[in-house]
Amino acid sequence: MCSLEKRGRVYVLSLTGDNEHRLNADLIAELRSALAKVRTEYAAAPEGSALVTAAEGRFFSNGFDLAWANAAGSPSASRQRLSSLVALFKPVVADLMSLPMPTISAVNGHAAAAGLMLAISHDYTVMRGDRGFLYMSELNIGLPFPPYFMSLMRAKIADPRTLRDVTLRAAKITAAEAKARGIVDSVHAGADEALQAAMRMGEELAARNWDGGVYASIRMAAFPDLCRAVGLPAEEKAQTFSSKL
Amino acid sequence: MCSLEKRGRVYVLSLTGDNEHRLNADLIAELRSALAKVRTEYAAAPEGSALVTAAEGRFFSNGFDLAWANAAGSPSASRQRLSSLVALFKPVVADLMSLPMPTISAVNGHAAAAGLMLAISHDYTVMRGDRGFLYMSELNIGLPFPPYFMSLMRAKIADPRTLRDVTLRAAKITAAEAKARGIVDSVHAGADEALQAAMRMGEELAARNWDGGVYASIRMAAFPDLCRAVGLPAEEKAQTFSSKL
Amino acid sequence: MCSLEKRGRVYVLSLTGDNEHRLNADLIAELRSALAKVRTEYAAAPEGSALVTAAEGRFFSNGFDLAWANAAGSPSASRQRLSSLVALFKPVVADLMSLPMPTISAVNGHAAAAGLMLAISHDYTVMRGDRGFLYMSELNIGLPFPPYFMSLMRAKIADPRTLRDVTLRAAKITAAEAKARGIVDSVHAGADEALQAAMRMGEELAARNWDGGVYASIRMAAFPDLCRAVGLPAEEKAQTFSSKL
Repeated sequence: MCSLEKRGRVYVLSLTGDNEHRLNADLIAELRSALAKVRTEYAAAPEGSALVTAAEGRFFSNGFDLAWANAAGSPSASRQRLSSLVALFKPVVADLMSLPMPTISAVNGHAAAAGLMLAISHDYTVMRGDRGFLYMSELNIGLPFPPYFMSLMRAKIADPRTLRDVTLRAAKITAAEAKARGIVDSVHAGADEALQAAMRMGEELAARNWDGGVYASIRMAAFPDLCRAVGLPAEEKAQTFSSKL
Repeated sequence: MCSLEKRGRVYVLSLTGDNEHRLNADLIAELRSALAKVRTEYAAAPEGSALVTAAEGRFFSNGFDLAWANAAGSPSASRQRLSSLVALFKPVVADLMSLPMPTISAVNGHAAAAGLMLAISHDYTVMRGDRGFLYMSELNIGLPFPPYFMSLMRAKIADPRTLRDVTLRAAKITAAEAKARGIVDSVHAGADEALQAAMRMGEELAARNWDGGVYASIRMAAFPDLCRAVGLPAEEKAQTFSSKL
Repeated sequence: MCSLEKRGRVYVLSLTGDNEHRLNADLIAELRSALAKVRTEYAAAPEGSALVTAAEGRFFSNGFDLAWANAAGSPSASRQRLSSLVALFKPVVADLMSLPMPTISAVNGHAAAAGLMLAISHDYTVMRGDRGFLYMSELNIGLPFPPYFMSLMRAKIADPRTLRDVTLRAAKITAAEAKARGIVDSVHAGADEALQAAMRMGEELAARNWDGGVYASIRMAAFPDLCRAVGLPAEEKAQTFSSKL
């Protein structure tokens, strides 16, 4: 479901297979395990690094595995399953917000609901331009957002009209529009080009050789509400100032 | 002072008469009564709906009825009257932020001070382009803003330089500039065209048939500081996630 | 190190000499003393005023005096020195956020780290276009930001991607790019032209004859998180509404 390799200085985390990359307990566990491996390796031998997250096939990720949730047998059991996914996925956002290196998502197709949350939990997002939408489907299927989804969108999609169109209009946003509205950083011809751009950016950022602990603490201080929402100690980390002179 | 009718799926709330639509206790009471009627009807028979708020004549609203406040007889009595309007108007913002359907303001002319607050309390704002300004006059007459005014502006006019120009420069902003700066969504030839555009948008949004409760809860979660400022339980509503699967 | 004069209605605060204008205890004390003088004079004889802060030579300010901090003799003594500068500079930001008149910084060259914080603590920033960068160097030298630096940047550089590029990419931003990204208000041919533009803007704003107390209270209400971070009572000030009718 998920593979991790290191190319040069850049970790590449791939959602494997030509499928929707629905986030279920297994995929989430594999993601967390891969991110933990990255963190452990960095801690053991700190050197300028970066993470690129990409997906195979035509989807980046279509969000939580609603088919599995809906198959629970009763509405309350379905809600229970969905809630469990919401809770399981939250630490993935925390892992990415506290990872001691720059992070880039390469969006190769649809990124919807929790799949879009995965994409924008990275510091940078590049996207293919020939197909794929960014899309929060919740309103269309009658679901409010988990609070940390909204915190994440408020942090990364700050413009009020864009936030409204994403959350209250369930807009399907193309790569070009996402670039114009500041949700993605660059648009590329196809999935391969997007991944290559992410890899170049990853190499470039890794070569800056920043202190990973400082990098993570600045990131967390830049987005304090989001950090609180996913259980990270935003403010305290920022207090470490002057420990590194 | 105020009329409510339903055209198709769209509620039209009109500030009637060719006057400045100054917000005094009577007009505020009529606005609240109309919004309560919309809410009650929706609760009784939920179906995709939208609200368009418009005004007759050359003004959208020039704000609180300062002439009435100033006629109180003494400075302290005037302050008392103005404070009462500030307190009375706050629930109008709360009513709009929690209304279970998309809301659109059609700005047909000047929208100043509390009048501008009324306009931007809606999800969408369209504006005529041939005349009319958006304008916060407070600084020019030596009045600070009520805290919930500032919360509303921080929520809907997030760009720091635009917020500064509105609040600390008392800029008179034309429709074209308001569009460029992200305060209004679209600009139209005249008042009729603006209202027609709002009606089309209202029909379109109503046709999406969103669950009104989910819609309102997403809106409140998107603007938590504003909701707190007007007494709405932003966070708790957001906790209802997964109750609707 | 620092001079203050009044030209017409505009106070001009100059960082004197063709040097980097490193912020050390002496320069910070002179800045605070000048700002206190402005405040005292305004309180004694309130009339429409403005403040322009400019610097001589090729630098606006390159930030804290790290050479002095590093010369402390031991890493812990260096940290201690740097922490003292961080603490000393915080009230400068508070002084500017609460000054009862519009404030403008004229950036004549590099504005880095605390030097950039000084620039964006003003209401308006104009910049020369032919040389000079805005630059947060902290990440490159392995320092997190003091929390109030981050609060200031979140307040004034709200766009998430710009905030990221400033804080997490240590981008060196030219005047033209800073204008495009909303960090500065206007770009001018050289240092003289930038200062002249700031003076014209200062005269124009001073001529509005706004009530200084109202001006300051609106500014503080517009940026409540920042005010809290530098020890100003943001919310309470905003409560003074209706005291001025």
